[in-house]
Amino acid sequence: MARRAIGVDLGGTNIKAGAVAEDGALLSRVAIPTRGGDGHDAVVARIVRAAEMARAEARLPWSAVAAVGVGSPGAFEGADGVVHHSPNLKDMEGKPLLRTLRRAFGRPGLPVALENDANVAAYAESWVGVGRRCRHMVLFTLGTGIGGGLVLDGEIWRGAWGAAAELGHMNLFPDGIRCACGNRGCLEAYASAPALARRLRAAVAAGQPTVLAEAVRRRQAPDARDITLAARAGDRTCRALLTETGRYLGIAVMNVLSMLNVELVVFTGGLTAAGALLLDPIRREARRRTFALAFDRARILFSRMGNDAGVIGAAGWALHRQRALPRRRTP
Amino acid sequence: MARRAIGVDLGGTNIKAGAVAEDGALLSRVAIPTRGGDGHDAVVARIVRAAEMARAEARLPWSAVAAVGVGSPGAFEGADGVVHHSPNLKDMEGKPLLRTLRRAFGRPGLPVALENDANVAAYAESWVGVGRRCRHMVLFTLGTGIGGGLVLDGEIWRGAWGAAAELGHMNLFPDGIRCACGNRGCLEAYASAPALARRLRAAVAAGQPTVLAEAVRRRQAPDARDITLAARAGDRTCRALLTETGRYLGIAVMNVLSMLNVELVVFTGGLTAAGALLLDPIRREARRRTFALAFDRARILFSRMGNDAGVIGAAGWALHRQRALPRRRTP
Repeated sequence: MARRAIGVDLGGTNIKAGAVAEDGALLSRVAIPTRGGDGHDAVVARIVRAAEMARAEARLPWSAVAAVGVGSPGAFEGADGVVHHSPNLKDMEGKPLLRTLRRAFGRPGLPVALENDANVAAYAESWVGVGRRCRHMVLFTLGTGIGGGLVLDGEIWRGAWGAAAELGHMNLFPDGIRCACGNRGCLEAYASAPALARRLRAAVAAGQPTVLAEAVRRRQAPDARDITLAARAGDRTCRALLTETGRYLGIAVMNVLSMLNVELVVFTGGLTAAGALLLDPIRREARRRTFALAFDRARILFSRMGNDAGVIGAAGWALHRQRALPRRRTP
Repeated sequence: MARRAIGVDLGGTNIKAGAVAEDGALLSRVAIPTRGGDGHDAVVARIVRAAEMARAEARLPWSAVAAVGVGSPGAFEGADGVVHHSPNLKDMEGKPLLRTLRRAFGRPGLPVALENDANVAAYAESWVGVGRRCRHMVLFTLGTGIGGGLVLDGEIWRGAWGAAAELGHMNLFPDGIRCACGNRGCLEAYASAPALARRLRAAVAAGQPTVLAEAVRRRQAPDARDITLAARAGDRTCRALLTETGRYLGIAVMNVLSMLNVELVVFTGGLTAAGALLLDPIRREARRRTFALAFDRARILFSRMGNDAGVIGAAGWALHRQRALPRRRTP
């Protein structure tokens, strides 16, 4: 019988969930508000509720659900999934979220997996996205922050304590500008969406011509999306800002390829709407800096999965874990 | 019966070899000149000869040798071990060194493994060195260049095409000084032994007081060893140079910990003679920059294995491969 899983994507605003088939097809899709402010117990109950809604929506009995996977920002340590670094869900830090979830589902035979959201998005790419049939890949998520996910040898790479793939905090300029994390010169401080908007303001202040100058002066806070649209419409200053962002990301790609020799680097998130205006400079900078053996056969691509990658990846990872567990060594 | 292997360390100047017991004990130790200029076939014959000498020296019959491991600079791709990037052995590039070695040993049942020298040194640390019982670790080799080795989940991590762990070419300053590899701002251009000597010359030119000033002016080319000795004797300028080198290495450690969340980072090579004068600033800089979850339980250590790490690691890796191969998935 074909196996299905429920995937849950726990975000700061919404909890999305869906039933997913063994071939990655999404059989149902639901979303409910997270309401993180209601606290740990309420959020756990809402995760279970979203999963239940996705199951019902797909008309599956629980007996047809092989596993549940939950993806969430943060790092989760050990067999109990103790929460570290969960910016959106402060109330959960230090708590054994995975153990709590298992109990909350109330189905002793049901495997539940909990994993970082960028990691499951990376797994989704390697399962049914641009990384299909690819064993080693890295995903960069470009947004307000820059996150990362690693798939090595077909498995999510979590590291010793679930803290791997913090790609946004790779160092770019040791004495550079201050990052939200407190350090100086992190990739995120140079190539995130807010960094792009900040550099637009600096460009306007320096008198560079752009269709967004007026909006900056009126403090309408044009954002990365506005910059991307203006660049696509031919605005030279906005194009130059994307080229510069691509250069920063290309250096980060070089660091990843030199360290891990993966086959594929994928970018996802709002900034990828810039298309070739961002992808070309990423590739150019990475090519210029990386040894040929690590670069020439590697691919650098933008994701085509859209917003369901988190749900699909969480479900896929849960199915994979369930299949792989009997032969798995201790993580 | 206890298993033994022969380890071979193929260097630019010498080929070292030794018989190694299952507990990592070195049972014999030989060295013969590499004579790379004699070409591919001659070097292959000398590798076999060194292994044969190590076997005889340990009074082992071939029937008691479970495997042979060869460590060498360069990247080796695929089942045939096609040579890429072998600076000391240019003549071998593009050739299937592992296949050739298997034939040259002339013992069809004998498993032969070929691996990058920094990778086998990393494996040695995880097997019988400071990384004993450690599943995830990174090794930096500090010398004329900076190399790297990765052990993830107890296995050497070679990446898709054997090109992983080029830690010396991680980017530190995107628009920084030119590296030997042609790029700008690589770690190696800032923290290798020649970089340290170069910064001493700059310090002397800038009028900073040091006991080595006279030697610099007389063009006696004081090197990293001289700087380390002077620093240990209290020379302030030399101490500051080591502190600065430690700062560069600490940033690299941060990048590695943030990306891979390994349990251990080990440094080996001549510069580690500086002891705490180098290790303290490495730890300080890494602590300052790394998320607590990835840093607090991670260890940063100098190797204590000395010059036999290459031989021991090559033998250990060959034993490990031989044991692991039947259950191994395709690499």
